[in-house]
Amino acid sequence: MRVVVPFSATEPKTRLAPVLDADERRAFARVMLADVLDALDTVGVDPTVLATEAIDLDRPVTVDDRPLDAAINGLLAASDEPVAVVMADLALATPDALDRLFAAEGDVVLAPGRGGGTNAFVARHPDFRVDYHDASIRDHRRIARDAGGTVTEIDSYRLSTDVDEPADLAEVLLHGEGRAADWLRGAGVQLTVADGRTTVERP
Amino acid sequence: MRVVVPFSATEPKTRLAPVLDADERRAFARVMLADVLDALDTVGVDPTVLATEAIDLDRPVTVDDRPLDAAINGLLAASDEPVAVVMADLALATPDALDRLFAAEGDVVLAPGRGGGTNAFVARHPDFRVDYHDASIRDHRRIARDAGGTVTEIDSYRLSTDVDEPADLAEVLLHGEGRAADWLRGAGVQLTVADGRTTVERP
Repeated sequence: MRVVVPFSATEPKTRLAPVLDADERRAFARVMLADVLDALDTVGVDPTVLATEAIDLDRPVTVDDRPLDAAINGLLAASDEPVAVVMADLALATPDALDRLFAAEGDVVLAPGRGGGTNAFVARHPDFRVDYHDASIRDHRRIARDAGGTVTEIDSYRLSTDVDEPADLAEVLLHGEGRAADWLRGAGVQLTVADGRTTVERP
Repeated sequence: MRVVVPFSATEPKTRLAPVLDADERRAFARVMLADVLDALDTVGVDPTVLATEAIDLDRPVTVDDRPLDAAINGLLAASDEPVAVVMADLALATPDALDRLFAAEGDVVLAPGRGGGTNAFVARHPDFRVDYHDASIRDHRRIARDAGGTVTEIDSYRLSTDVDEPADLAEVLLHGEGRAADWLRGAGVQLTVADGRTTVERP
């Protein structure tokens, strides 16, 4: 199985701007990537990073500056083995959660993200393709079924949590087991509860 | 094992006011409760509803108008068997997800909610108590450990999704398998994506 971790190296995580400046967002995105790669290493798969521009990393990096759909669909079309894609901002991904993803049966195994996204998948069907625009989980179910494939969905809070907005950082502080949570604490990012909503502040 | 489903019958789900009026919120809360009870029935446990006021329901209802912590802690103190608590607004709870909750080992098994909540738990330790104020998952980990109990956490997107705000309704529309999703569609609640965020609208 080929395991790919797409990484947006160019101005990553702009929606975290209320909490982190541009340099910090870039650094934090790299820490999350490192956590995801560590978890994949523990599972025993051999991930390749698919980056939008060259990055300095001590492991295989494929650079492809096309939009994500085109880059992933190029890989899917070219691969003669199953392909797994795991997003680089799954700061809560643990080896156990990823094990469940890889162990699940089905031609297409989807790990839904909160908000309708698709945070990770395993494609064992040659005709599966991605369409990450908007609520992609619905499109991916449809694409898999239209191709005649069976679909399995992984029920994982950890894999459902991609980090885009300040409130997502609260999830990392509450449940993170990797370096991303430590990085946030080191940067002075703290949990706060306002009007019954948990988010973060940086006093 | 005693299984309890707390249900706030008095002005439920006020934060859904941008989408549903007071009567609709009351009706929708009851539909979610019915879905949770159905899922528990399928698992084969025998839930009791713990309601803040009398409600018309074709199954056992205990009325306790104390705040949630006091009501649950009263049950925990009085029970000589394990107690499970499953919130009534887990509109995505499936029998599979609940099976994982009940099957997990540990003196205290916690199902975290997004935002630091505790959406369900199983307490097999006699000294476990609840404190639902603010990010309760941290308190519940601490209370269990202070009591000398082992803690297990269930990694479930479905159990992590309690329905409080309009964006949570998008999760129900995307992933609901019970009547709550149908009820929302019947009420004309639709998915919409704005600025990369998935939420709902009611045109």
